[in-house]
Amino acid sequence: MMNTATLQKTLGELAAEYVRRLNLKIESIEEDGVTLSMPVAPELVHGGGVLCGQAIMSAADTAMLVAMIARIGEFKPMTTVQMQTSFLRPIPKDAGSVTVVARLLRFGKTLSYGEVEFLTADRKLAAKATTTYALI
Amino acid sequence: MMNTATLQKTLGELAAEYVRRLNLKIESIEEDGVTLSMPVAPELVHGGGVLCGQAIMSAADTAMLVAMIARIGEFKPMTTVQMQTSFLRPIPKDAGSVTVVARLLRFGKTLSYGEVEFLTADRKLAAKATTTYALI
Amino acid sequence: MMNTATLQKTLGELAAEYVRRLNLKIESIEEDGVTLSMPVAPELVHGGGVLCGQAIMSAADTAMLVAMIARIGEFKPMTTVQMQTSFLRPIPKDAGSVTVVARLLRFGKTLSYGEVEFLTADRKLAAKATTTYALI
Amino acid sequence: MMNTATLQKTLGELAAEYVRRLNLKIESIEEDGVTLSMPVAPELVHGGGVLCGQAIMSAADTAMLVAMIARIGEFKPMTTVQMQTSFLRPIPKDAGSVTVVARLLRFGKTLSYGEVEFLTADRKLAAKATTTYALI
Repeated sequence: MMNTATLQKTLGELAAEYVRRLNLKIESIEEDGVTLSMPVAPELVHGGGVLCGQAIMSAADTAMLVAMIARIGEFKPMTTVQMQTSFLRPIPKDAGSVTVVARLLRFGKTLSYGEVEFLTADRKLAAKATTTYALI
Repeated sequence: MMNTATLQKTLGELAAEYVRRLNLKIESIEEDGVTLSMPVAPELVHGGGVLCGQAIMSAADTAMLVAMIARIGEFKPMTTVQMQTSFLRPIPKDAGSVTVVARLLRFGKTLSYGEVEFLTADRKLAAKATTTYALI
Repeated sequence: MMNTATLQKTLGELAAEYVRRLNLKIESIEEDGVTLSMPVAPELVHGGGVLCGQAIMSAADTAMLVAMIARIGEFKPMTTVQMQTSFLRPIPKDAGSVTVVARLLRFGKTLSYGEVEFLTADRKLAAKATTTYALI
Repeated sequence: MMNTATLQKTLGELAAEYVRRLNLKIESIEEDGVTLSMPVAPELVHGGGVLCGQAIMSAADTAMLVAMIARIGEFKPMTTVQMQTSFLRPIPKDAGSVTVVARLLRFGKTLSYGEVEFLTADRKLAAKATTTYALI
């Protein structure tokens, strides 16, 4: 099983610069997924004073990628087939950071399914994504 | 009706820096939507040599926002309720730029529905998103 | 708080005959949702010998409706805004019945968000839906 | 290329009784999809006096299946990976019938992507689904 440092390094090597700007930190690896944190940086806040949905979706897709790598034990070529995200509550600019929990609902030879939750410091669910990945 | 210059200026003022990095250019305003272009910049390309899905989802959400503003004639507070994106074909790093077409399927007093298509230079559909927005 | 008998009666009065054919039974009401069961009847099985996805989606939408009614304490006019369903594992025709667990992720004045899980007798996740409802 | 009669017969043999109750009629086969019609029968109408969303989702999934069979030229084992449906406008019980247009956005060796539109007699878009299918 990979540790968080190896996983963080792998993510840094694979991710586009656009994704690295999110400064996602891998906090822990669980049996069925991973937990990351994302700072609510000023760069990610839009004119309405809340964390932009674009950062949330970027983080969700990335968290699922990390969960897949953790499950496989190394990076293998894969692609997002689809992702659906629901936005439940705004995350204010002074929220500090959000917790991003990605869980594999099913890991398959070709298709894998997962879900990603965004939790604020007071453990409220701010956004939830469901996603399908394909190993290629 | 707004022109593309006013719309581009409005987007620049509202969008988070994270979104402005996409360098989305508003190309035209249609009766039921807008057309944007996005350069496939090195910053948006991941280790696999293709445009990262995170940039695609960020651009889709933003394109729908632009279509909403164009429809209303000015910015009004609104939020993404949900967005679902399907990834059909990879966009290689040397693709130059992609065309992003956002269309309002229904504009309502509270809820609005739209879809966003990503087309490569040879007019192939690379990704498609459907989205729901709420005026708040 | 409603009891399962009242809720079952309300569902019977509201649902289209097409939905009543699913023979959904309300098993219990939880603080944040409801649990139903659905018999894997021959009428719901397609040529491939498994529970048809159409029955799963019908049940998911209905289960969320039941969860909304349970939360409100009575029926109020509402509509499904969107629903996304992922199919993880086939449910064989001899599965007996499936457990359908609907949970409200957020209940709001206008928009509400929920998720619905389909579990087989051995507690495997067969399908999962996320959904958005609007009170009208 | 299959004709509508053969396709209708194939659908009748494959579909669960629950789906056959929709009385979907294959109207035409296009290069990239199929067009069906669905009668707004009393059985499909819920207590609010409109076509139930469950029938819409059932029809959408089925229409995509028909489009896949038409594209392949015969039935091959396949499964729905995911489907997302947005409900834009209610379809009243006296609407007569709705037109269901399924289009393949991409047909692939393993994964295929499609979308399905529901149009009322006055050509208004009432619902739209996007879906992913896998040949197995």
